[in-house]
Amino acid sequence: MPSALSQPDLLGTECLSRDDISAILDLAGHYAQRNRSAQKSCDRLAGKIIVNMFFEDSTRTRTSFEVAAKRLGAQVVNFSASISSMNKGETFSDTMRVIESMQVDGIVMRHRTNGAPVEAAALLDIPVLNAGDGSREHPTQALLDALTMVRHKGHLGGLKVAICGDIEHSRVARSNAFLLNKFGAEVRFFAPPQFIPRDISSLNVRQCSSMEEVLQDADVAMMLRIQNERLSEGEFSMTVEDYHEQYGLNHDKLRVANPEVIVMHPAPMNRGVEITNELADDPRHSVIFEQMEMGVAVRMACLDLLVGSDSKEL
Amino acid sequence: MPSALSQPDLLGTECLSRDDISAILDLAGHYAQRNRSAQKSCDRLAGKIIVNMFFEDSTRTRTSFEVAAKRLGAQVVNFSASISSMNKGETFSDTMRVIESMQVDGIVMRHRTNGAPVEAAALLDIPVLNAGDGSREHPTQALLDALTMVRHKGHLGGLKVAICGDIEHSRVARSNAFLLNKFGAEVRFFAPPQFIPRDISSLNVRQCSSMEEVLQDADVAMMLRIQNERLSEGEFSMTVEDYHEQYGLNHDKLRVANPEVIVMHPAPMNRGVEITNELADDPRHSVIFEQMEMGVAVRMACLDLLVGSDSKEL
Amino acid sequence: MPSALSQPDLLGTECLSRDDISAILDLAGHYAQRNRSAQKSCDRLAGKIIVNMFFEDSTRTRTSFEVAAKRLGAQVVNFSASISSMNKGETFSDTMRVIESMQVDGIVMRHRTNGAPVEAAALLDIPVLNAGDGSREHPTQALLDALTMVRHKGHLGGLKVAICGDIEHSRVARSNAFLLNKFGAEVRFFAPPQFIPRDISSLNVRQCSSMEEVLQDADVAMMLRIQNERLSEGEFSMTVEDYHEQYGLNHDKLRVANPEVIVMHPAPMNRGVEITNELADDPRHSVIFEQMEMGVAVRMACLDLLVGSDSKEL
Repeated sequence: MPSALSQPDLLGTECLSRDDISAILDLAGHYAQRNRSAQKSCDRLAGKIIVNMFFEDSTRTRTSFEVAAKRLGAQVVNFSASISSMNKGETFSDTMRVIESMQVDGIVMRHRTNGAPVEAAALLDIPVLNAGDGSREHPTQALLDALTMVRHKGHLGGLKVAICGDIEHSRVARSNAFLLNKFGAEVRFFAPPQFIPRDISSLNVRQCSSMEEVLQDADVAMMLRIQNERLSEGEFSMTVEDYHEQYGLNHDKLRVANPEVIVMHPAPMNRGVEITNELADDPRHSVIFEQMEMGVAVRMACLDLLVGSDSKEL
Repeated sequence: MPSALSQPDLLGTECLSRDDISAILDLAGHYAQRNRSAQKSCDRLAGKIIVNMFFEDSTRTRTSFEVAAKRLGAQVVNFSASISSMNKGETFSDTMRVIESMQVDGIVMRHRTNGAPVEAAALLDIPVLNAGDGSREHPTQALLDALTMVRHKGHLGGLKVAICGDIEHSRVARSNAFLLNKFGAEVRFFAPPQFIPRDISSLNVRQCSSMEEVLQDADVAMMLRIQNERLSEGEFSMTVEDYHEQYGLNHDKLRVANPEVIVMHPAPMNRGVEITNELADDPRHSVIFEQMEMGVAVRMACLDLLVGSDSKEL
Repeated sequence: MPSALSQPDLLGTECLSRDDISAILDLAGHYAQRNRSAQKSCDRLAGKIIVNMFFEDSTRTRTSFEVAAKRLGAQVVNFSASISSMNKGETFSDTMRVIESMQVDGIVMRHRTNGAPVEAAALLDIPVLNAGDGSREHPTQALLDALTMVRHKGHLGGLKVAICGDIEHSRVARSNAFLLNKFGAEVRFFAPPQFIPRDISSLNVRQCSSMEEVLQDADVAMMLRIQNERLSEGEFSMTVEDYHEQYGLNHDKLRVANPEVIVMHPAPMNRGVEITNELADDPRHSVIFEQMEMGVAVRMACLDLLVGSDSKEL
């Protein structure tokens, strides 16, 4: 019987303790193994209802959370924000309290506003799991990345982790930095000048000025997509070819890295832009689809630990 | 084992007998209690499939019905009208018969056309539950309102119920009037002149000409939202400030009511318009989020009584 | 315990063997009977997760597959392509591999591109069921049509099957032609000149030049809808009246057919265009809503045979 986390919500990796992270990764490892067996489902959350509240479009993350919840035996209700009552003048906090009033057992939230899940968690007595808020945090992504690294490298401490691309708009980069720092990994960023986050000095990462520098002896190379949907018209005018040349990853640039380097990407990938086709599909380095697999396992662990913790009462 | 209702569908409170209403409220009270326990789910509708057919956007009501069905162990299929075959020239009755041909066990329908669920029920052999049709009826809302009133006042007979706001477009007001009249409550309306329904004389309600009059000794004050989505451009030109001043509820206006008055709202609320922030959150009067909670219980009772009634055959 | 099919996916009737078709129809007949009993659901796919990937709008087919999967005890995740990562530059094959990485148990796919499910099946190790691709194939429609014919005629061999309407854009017509030819039925097409498929000579059907010819002694008359959503502006300019006159079916034209002729339509129907109201509702001939019923049974059989085949390992 897993013990619950030291906090009732999953809002970010910044506020998560090492013990909590370890508890999630341990349980996720167990679920990862189980998910490769014939008997993938269990009834750990049977009778529970999880509401997916996605105020911003997402397919992979919503689907991953839905698969995770259903594999634990929970029922899932998808709340679609585009048709929500908020079009009718309802406040965010009223919408959240309306859902809580239905006595559901947990809320998975994606929101374009930084901190929206934090606000929700402060309002509600039921667990809130952050599935990505603005450019702030995406904790389950960082957790699945950590699980993937541990599976390939055995540990996080001392790992050299290169994160490249549109870091400013990336909640993935921030959540990874918070988590990896807690475990003594060396986090390095390399980004086009305009995509360097303004608060980089507070993130305790090494800012690099070339692909060669960021990849030197790297154990992990994590490539990020340009998030065009977060850019205003004309905000970024580099051609795809130039971007690929200067910031994209290929086998050649990877030569300075640890020969056992793993290549990661939170997806969706833009092949030929931030990563070559060949590298994305190279089984010696690419663990990109394994990340998706670990995503379900990590989300099962988080749901189990946060929503299933009171099932002892049943 | 609850007995079935005297009719196979739930189409409105106007055509529902007192006995049927009492049966629903009794069972809903049982579910409300159960929903506050650790063991909220049961298998009363296990193996049943409920189709949510929402031809008009709704978040709260659809979610509430989905939670209710899932808590009873049913499976739910969401039919989205915006991507429906009706864009391809299919008639409403053919769409309904197509769904019935799949041998599902019940249909929950919201439709912008008055009477659409009545038409569907006449066509189909499976139970149809009206989740709101045009400006005609919204029976589960009136039932959850009644359950909330009974919990606070012990009974409906003799209650003075003030309903204020855009009554003309409000199926909630109409369904409440039908139900409350059957139990001997005194229903009073107060609305801007253009929002007084043309058939008010047939509704057996007292039409008031001021907030003071409608609230005098009231046991219940139910505030309605201006349904801007049902108004044509320029149809209602009052400023928010003027509306709030003349038709909005605040602590001051409430002084003429019964000191134990409960304040209700079918949500979504427009805070600062039809109700002040302070009153919406005042635990001495506001039962607004309890209404949401009772919504799940009432919908569980309706689904159980209508869809589960033949489960004895299993 | 049904045996699995000779192939791991359901991509079209062209590549399906007679034995596989017979296995599907036999099991579907069993499910059709069960679906008329009080105990419609079973746990044949309990613990399995099916993902509905509809890259093209559909209501009936998606709902039918969802009802089928749920009736077998599977859980269903609806992946909506309009909000998918493909808007963010992800390739089709990456999207498919992302979903497969979540270790789901089967994919039901509709896609506007001919061959998309074939491409997916080649990429993935999990079963892919084609729910209609472009104008190529819609195998479960042809299977449910075949089941309906067998129930009324006892066999397929020697049946004269008239298919009329927009055949060029009709994956239904093509899948029916492939299947019926395998069982020795005589397939006849009648269409406006511009709706005759260019590859008609390879389809082994008899091309007719009048309603009278196509319906002569016909055992089955299958009417197709003009798929306006697949036509460019002005591509088809016939009036509804003229179309109905020349290509629509009514009782009068049906006189030359077998007196026991059954009238079929894959729906949605355009009453008064390709078929009269009276004929669509004539219980002596019309089996249109029975087709919908058989659709669930056929999809249960396909899901069972393809997704449930490894359940012996559990």
